[in-house]
Amino acid sequence: MPKMERFFDQEFGSLRQQILEMGAAVEKAIENAVRGLIERTPESFNQVYAYETKINQFHISIDEACMRVLARQAPMASDLRLVLGCIKINSDLERMGDQAVNISHCGRHYLSELPLKPLVDLPKMAEEVRKMTRDALNAFFHQDQELAKKVVINDDIVDRYKNEIFQELIGIMKSNPATVDRAMDLILISRNLERIGDHATNIAEDVIFVASGVDIRHGSAKSVG
Amino acid sequence: MPKMERFFDQEFGSLRQQILEMGAAVEKAIENAVRGLIERTPESFNQVYAYETKINQFHISIDEACMRVLARQAPMASDLRLVLGCIKINSDLERMGDQAVNISHCGRHYLSELPLKPLVDLPKMAEEVRKMTRDALNAFFHQDQELAKKVVINDDIVDRYKNEIFQELIGIMKSNPATVDRAMDLILISRNLERIGDHATNIAEDVIFVASGVDIRHGSAKSVG
Repeated sequence: MPKMERFFDQEFGSLRQQILEMGAAVEKAIENAVRGLIERTPESFNQVYAYETKINQFHISIDEACMRVLARQAPMASDLRLVLGCIKINSDLERMGDQAVNISHCGRHYLSELPLKPLVDLPKMAEEVRKMTRDALNAFFHQDQELAKKVVINDDIVDRYKNEIFQELIGIMKSNPATVDRAMDLILISRNLERIGDHATNIAEDVIFVASGVDIRHGSAKSVG
Repeated sequence: MPKMERFFDQEFGSLRQQILEMGAAVEKAIENAVRGLIERTPESFNQVYAYETKINQFHISIDEACMRVLARQAPMASDLRLVLGCIKINSDLERMGDQAVNISHCGRHYLSELPLKPLVDLPKMAEEVRKMTRDALNAFFHQDQELAKKVVINDDIVDRYKNEIFQELIGIMKSNPATVDRAMDLILISRNLERIGDHATNIAEDVIFVASGVDIRHGSAKSVG
């Protein structure tokens, strides 16, 4: 059915475009949240809220578009995996937006006091998480399984940063109770970054599933092709 | 097509049964994680890991079953919403299991020291979260929109507990640096509970969407019938 096929490609093209725009908004939201914290520019946080509104609109309209494609086209095999992959990626992107908002919320609180001397390794961790996000989205757009695998592996680097940052901040809190509020803000922000990394990993796993029909979650590698 | 219809009902019945079993495992995981903490019984945490293994198996097999139903039956309208609802609920249940594991992890660390006098309102918060989880699952099984709406509203109670617990523990940390480790464990556990509540809310929102075709997420109430 070459005609059906072309119609699916058309509908999918517009879905892909929406995810591209949503992904760009998510990247911008993360970028502004981190910038607000590092450069101490609270106005960056306002940008995050604006991006989140956009992200939430995409969330709903992409879900609708996916339902439409499923209902009208009843796609099979790799086309079906592609649409289901979009549904999951949509949900992960939306939650990444929520985390950028959480970072802004803690960030604003953090900026209300003098900076805690070292921002510890938070800027480095944020950079790693942004790279993972970018790579996961690129892996999706180019159906690049190698890049997706790299994202899954890089999640360990982010977890390591999270643990090191945690230990360092706990030490700072214990030695000086006046730092408790600020150290807590930074701990919570590092957890938000970790969760963004987790969502990027989910996206990468979905890319591998869409491209290969192999489910690599939970250490399994079961083909449902 | 009454014959197709019956076949869908059959396939869906087995999917529903799997979600029922997965939901029960998730409830047990949460129950054991909280019991370990409150009753100071580290052996309860081992149960959590066992349930998580089961939950992860369900996660993969339910996703496969959903794909099969979509590919074989190409369901439309409310049947399609039902299958998509199952895909989302499956993903939320799996993440609730992860949070039970996180609680066990922090709980074990917490038990390695003497108890911090009051477990603050954590047991009450845990009870509320368990009730939300139970209600969300019941709302799904009985397609009970009223119950689902109650779950969405109750999320505010959980958020309030989280904020009160946070403030109280920050105060304890500041007044006595020797409590930092234990107070931090409890703060992280309250965040894990909050996330379980968020997932229960997602499930409730999906129940409303499946039953009514109305998407109530992000404060919108758009019918995609």
